[in-house]
Amino acid sequence: MIALDRPIKFEEVDAANIVFFARFVTYAHEAMEHFFGGLEGGYARLIMERRVGLPAVHVEMSFSSPVRYGDVLHIETRIARVGTRSATLWYKMIHKGTGALSADLRHTVVTTDLRTLKSCEMPADVRALLLAHVEPPAG
Amino acid sequence: MIALDRPIKFEEVDAANIVFFARFVTYAHEAMEHFFGGLEGGYARLIMERRVGLPAVHVEMSFSSPVRYGDVLHIETRIARVGTRSATLWYKMIHKGTGALSADLRHTVVTTDLRTLKSCEMPADVRALLLAHVEPPAG
Amino acid sequence: MIALDRPIKFEEVDAANIVFFARFVTYAHEAMEHFFGGLEGGYARLIMERRVGLPAVHVEMSFSSPVRYGDVLHIETRIARVGTRSATLWYKMIHKGTGALSADLRHTVVTTDLRTLKSCEMPADVRALLLAHVEPPAG
Amino acid sequence: MIALDRPIKFEEVDAANIVFFARFVTYAHEAMEHFFGGLEGGYARLIMERRVGLPAVHVEMSFSSPVRYGDVLHIETRIARVGTRSATLWYKMIHKGTGALSADLRHTVVTTDLRTLKSCEMPADVRALLLAHVEPPAG
Repeated sequence: MIALDRPIKFEEVDAANIVFFARFVTYAHEAMEHFFGGLEGGYARLIMERRVGLPAVHVEMSFSSPVRYGDVLHIETRIARVGTRSATLWYKMIHKGTGALSADLRHTVVTTDLRTLKSCEMPADVRALLLAHVEPPAG
Repeated sequence: MIALDRPIKFEEVDAANIVFFARFVTYAHEAMEHFFGGLEGGYARLIMERRVGLPAVHVEMSFSSPVRYGDVLHIETRIARVGTRSATLWYKMIHKGTGALSADLRHTVVTTDLRTLKSCEMPADVRALLLAHVEPPAG
Repeated sequence: MIALDRPIKFEEVDAANIVFFARFVTYAHEAMEHFFGGLEGGYARLIMERRVGLPAVHVEMSFSSPVRYGDVLHIETRIARVGTRSATLWYKMIHKGTGALSADLRHTVVTTDLRTLKSCEMPADVRALLLAHVEPPAG
Repeated sequence: MIALDRPIKFEEVDAANIVFFARFVTYAHEAMEHFFGGLEGGYARLIMERRVGLPAVHVEMSFSSPVRYGDVLHIETRIARVGTRSATLWYKMIHKGTGALSADLRHTVVTTDLRTLKSCEMPADVRALLLAHVEPPAG
């Protein structure tokens, strides 16, 4: 599990004064960038130089309790599953002050050659990093 | 079914030069705002004056083909299900040029009193509008 | 002058429940995309096929009155100045309900070859469109 | 001077594959939130509990060189001027890898009571923090 603390920013709340659902997906992507910080050159080099990306093919997410400006989300990233060319990342987003679960996201990605936008072999270092953090959700 | 054509904006693509997954959720919310344009005063009055909101509790989405700057998404909004206090909106996002399905989202919301952030009765006009567009996904 | 009506979206307000200043710059860019809708294929073709862009080199903006969710900005785009390779776009953003000026932006751009990111000749159709809307701010 | 290193995120580039101008204003706001981290409870408490905000009234910005995904902006925040109810923040945004200046922003804010959206006295701790970092731009 790799954790990231993410403070909610001033402009990230909505007209109901809470964070609206699309932003949690952005937070998930930030947690994924952070997760792949373990690669040499990180996710940025994977994308920009190695030209391999991990576009989403399926996402499921549930929301339990709202967050507001000033709150901090504690995001835990685990790997639920590693396939041949795909993998499922699993994010638990917890309100750091109260410990309440705010959101749970399952994010399935496919290793993709960004030159052709076709699926490709999963690079060995990507696979190793994913495998090192496999922890399937219970139940 | 209520449709919305949504051109992809210049700044909405990512470092792989395609639209990344979190933005589709924003597009879904725009389609929802558009859907509730049928209420008197629209979604804005529901939120700002009537203080009733529709926060997401569950979302499932699948992505089939990428979109880029200059593409137009044709978003079809249908209602998959209407419950007592909840409802599921269903968005098909189609690449307008090619007709290819780009994304499919199912978005379950709960009628919520924004003063207390607790679930509340579904207002009659909201229910009527939802019921007028029920069209469950086949299969 | 070319006008665009832009409703404020649900997620575009901040923790003070008004639109924060960075978003007005996004609205200016939307108004610029709309302005260049007069080119064949619009701004998208200019960027994606012709590989000519208009990055900002200087922006000045003043804010007079706040806008909220549910408000509509009436954005008037004029051209303040056309140079050899540069031009200054001028946006007046007016609260549609009250007529109050909300923001005034002056946005200087330079015609740029996106392959090299160096300044380049201004394409003739871009120049003609700009010149057709020159209307320098008084005073 | 208070500095902040801000990596460019995956989704923050545009169709020309560089960061477009509106995002620099968002970065400036992040640098401002970071600057006011020196207040007890930070900017979040100022906004959410003390109900005092600092909306922009005027911004000037110049752009010198582009940044891309994977780059890090080194943002230096200084205070150019402190008035009775207003102040001007000055941000130099430097490409961390090359040392090149990317953007220079001057951001004038007015102390505002968020309950009435009228200007108000500048709180003593806000003034003290601003004064501790006054360093007017040369020339």
